[in-house]
Amino acid sequence: MLTVILAIGREILRGRVQDTNSGTLARRLTGLGHAVIRITSCDDDLVAIVRELRRAAEDGAALVVTTGGLGPTDDDLTLQALAEATGCPLALHPGARDLVAAQYAAFARNGAVADGRMTAPREKMAWLPEGATPLPNPVGVAPGVWLEAARVNYVALPGVPAEMRAILEQAVLPILAARVPGTGYVERRIVTQARDESVVAPVLRRLGLELPEVYLKSHPTRFGSDVRMEVFASTWASDPGEADRRLARALSLLREALGEVPPADT
Amino acid sequence: MLTVILAIGREILRGRVQDTNSGTLARRLTGLGHAVIRITSCDDDLVAIVRELRRAAEDGAALVVTTGGLGPTDDDLTLQALAEATGCPLALHPGARDLVAAQYAAFARNGAVADGRMTAPREKMAWLPEGATPLPNPVGVAPGVWLEAARVNYVALPGVPAEMRAILEQAVLPILAARVPGTGYVERRIVTQARDESVVAPVLRRLGLELPEVYLKSHPTRFGSDVRMEVFASTWASDPGEADRRLARALSLLREALGEVPPADT
Repeated sequence: MLTVILAIGREILRGRVQDTNSGTLARRLTGLGHAVIRITSCDDDLVAIVRELRRAAEDGAALVVTTGGLGPTDDDLTLQALAEATGCPLALHPGARDLVAAQYAAFARNGAVADGRMTAPREKMAWLPEGATPLPNPVGVAPGVWLEAARVNYVALPGVPAEMRAILEQAVLPILAARVPGTGYVERRIVTQARDESVVAPVLRRLGLELPEVYLKSHPTRFGSDVRMEVFASTWASDPGEADRRLARALSLLREALGEVPPADT
Repeated sequence: MLTVILAIGREILRGRVQDTNSGTLARRLTGLGHAVIRITSCDDDLVAIVRELRRAAEDGAALVVTTGGLGPTDDDLTLQALAEATGCPLALHPGARDLVAAQYAAFARNGAVADGRMTAPREKMAWLPEGATPLPNPVGVAPGVWLEAARVNYVALPGVPAEMRAILEQAVLPILAARVPGTGYVERRIVTQARDESVVAPVLRRLGLELPEVYLKSHPTRFGSDVRMEVFASTWASDPGEADRRLARALSLLREALGEVPPADT
């Protein structure tokens, strides 16, 4: 399933905050068999967010996961952008309102906020695009949002990493795992004897022709006091046995062509 | 100057490597007065890279900085994509070839590679879009590349962070600093007494109308055992005194409206 990740927040573009959410999402979604084709950070700007949501759909994404922009302030614009990009207008969602109200009531009881009553900025987090489902936020307040529109699944998660991860693990991944038709991504690596990527390049070209279903990529890596070329072999397959066979063959051909640094060398 | 950052590399999309280059670039370019409007990671795929380069130009970027995809392997496609997106065909650049040859010769002398002679994969790194200027790489081999085409400045840097940073600091930033007309970005913050973003939201809305040139953004932050709302005030101005005046006024209004956690409290 082609997937686009969109991290929304000016603080990322100013270099003040390192976006770690996208890496977490990329790793977890890849592990479930999704093909992440793009990760983008954009501004807290309605035009910019709508543009990126539309581009994701144009590029064939069936899953678009956003982080950030779900909070109570006026520059939290993700749901408004989602409404505009999909044509599903915002409406107060009673279930989402209950989730938000329950979190503020709990925060008021334990003293984290002075007053637990609903206000307009708090209620804003419960205005979802029509047809969307709220995903409970066990850590903070803003619910995650799942919206299916024109055959694209949009999943909007908060930008605070602990909140993002909690909703991802407790709600999003279980739903996706139940849907994905079992295609899995498998990756293995070897550290080769080669010390120079320009020597590895023609080998990867030749093996790439021989192994069209395996993607080979080299990376220089520190190995003791030395630099050696690490090669990653990866493949997608619905049958894990088939994936293992392909990668075993790839690693054997790589060892033959480039040598492998023996484990005793470390 | 509107700026787009493009990090090229499948390892980022698979969640195997955290892209830290974009954060470094965003911070350094923002500090020089550039407005980063988007950060995107895309695949080692010619169509995907060309598409993102074209989108950057469509969105009005005057500066596009890429990382990754400059190496000797076949999936290093950045220069080919740049050639296609700009219509400047690749040609062997004698100066770039000299840079590459000199680095391999040096590596051969210190034993880092077995043989320092030029080969086709090594020479590949010196095929630049016509009109481009190579930027010496003091750490690795692949030169950075600067290309101005249709009034857009494209700067291609390696993906290895130490190489990226070296070329950025030694070549790119000095050139940009000499060009930028002195507009600077200034940011200040206070930690307010507010413990709840929904209370801060209407204050930021009101002050935003009063201070149209200042951007205000709240973030929950740990403060001792407590959570408090931090507010960032930022502005762009060609006169640093003017920027300071604007932000001093913003901080004073924020203190009045939300209180400030006194330093003695820490």
